[in-house]
Amino acid sequence: MIATHDSLSDLRERLRQFAAERDWEHFHVPKNLAMSVAIEAAEIMEHFQWLTPEQSAALPESQRIAVAYEIADVLLYLVRLADVLDIDPVEAALEKMAINARKYPVARGI
Amino acid sequence: MIATHDSLSDLRERLRQFAAERDWEHFHVPKNLAMSVAIEAAEIMEHFQWLTPEQSAALPESQRIAVAYEIADVLLYLVRLADVLDIDPVEAALEKMAINARKYPVARGI
Amino acid sequence: MIATHDSLSDLRERLRQFAAERDWEHFHVPKNLAMSVAIEAAEIMEHFQWLTPEQSAALPESQRIAVAYEIADVLLYLVRLADVLDIDPVEAALEKMAINARKYPVARGI
Amino acid sequence: MIATHDSLSDLRERLRQFAAERDWEHFHVPKNLAMSVAIEAAEIMEHFQWLTPEQSAALPESQRIAVAYEIADVLLYLVRLADVLDIDPVEAALEKMAINARKYPVARGI
Repeated sequence: MIATHDSLSDLRERLRQFAAERDWEHFHVPKNLAMSVAIEAAEIMEHFQWLTPEQSAALPESQRIAVAYEIADVLLYLVRLADVLDIDPVEAALEKMAINARKYPVARGI
Repeated sequence: MIATHDSLSDLRERLRQFAAERDWEHFHVPKNLAMSVAIEAAEIMEHFQWLTPEQSAALPESQRIAVAYEIADVLLYLVRLADVLDIDPVEAALEKMAINARKYPVARGI
Repeated sequence: MIATHDSLSDLRERLRQFAAERDWEHFHVPKNLAMSVAIEAAEIMEHFQWLTPEQSAALPESQRIAVAYEIADVLLYLVRLADVLDIDPVEAALEKMAINARKYPVARGI
Repeated sequence: MIATHDSLSDLRERLRQFAAERDWEHFHVPKNLAMSVAIEAAEIMEHFQWLTPEQSAALPESQRIAVAYEIADVLLYLVRLADVLDIDPVEAALEKMAINARKYPVARGI
């Protein structure tokens, strides 16, 4: 059912093994993983909370790296959540982009 | 700097074009996109808010599809956020998994 | 244990009755209510996601009213969460402010 | 415009003074404060992420106190956000409860 989407399917397999080796599978129900995604998303925001939009686009390198790891956490939990729900996130994203493209058509001048 | 990670790099390119065609690039500063990721993460949670953990693992098909689109929204904003920060999310995720593996070593019996 | 803090204790009593009359008390476990607070907090953010900081401080009246109801939702779930945990939120807030005052002392000139 | 709602109006006044003394008022635009509310809401969730609903209702005392301070943080930012938007959160909450009461009428048996 889930297509073999390269980088993300590799992450998915690693996360499955990681959870199985630690006997964490019973924690990884969708309700809990959905909370995890939201918690990690808030940790991304913490870095930008008091910055102006302009400052947020010009992070010092040490902070950019810290944000990279927070983005990583969201991605890991998101891939794991999709997996336990048997959802292909890339396929869903492509479908959603097609919906968005119809919803927000490109303005064409003369 | 950003490696060519297949499915996600494809999404990244599509999102760049989507934003450019609509002249949305000035909205896509990291501060705003970090908010977007968190907002969409909360929309995933909405589906699980009142369910027991067991119910969350046995969603009716219509609801599972609705959750797939919310997961898609988080993924799209996350990929876009990583792009404007010049971060490779898969590389960061692999590094983070290595850190987690050291932090939570697998228990080995005798 | 919970002091009688006027406006909030009034809300707390109304929320208790509201839940009891609808037989919703079994839904109102702390895990679920914590999700509710976060979900409603994200709905506040939705109004500000694409605004500049300046625009966020000058909302059109219709949007200011919409935000008021989102703030109301966070407050209602927060008061309910505190209640089921037997926490007095105002007392906790006053203690937290005292901690913050020590953490961030006021700079005094000569 | 804002009614004098006792405990919360007291918090509101203390928060105004706290911000003024530290020259933090320029940080306290609605966009930033909305992020703060959501970030602190996620910190409440962190305590419940891996607990069963039953466990979440029977926290060890040390953890219950930790949650009290997270609830305090949400309340403080929420009151501050309402203040800079000139919103009375208790009034809004009472109106919202009236709306909810009409939306979810109490079931009456025979």
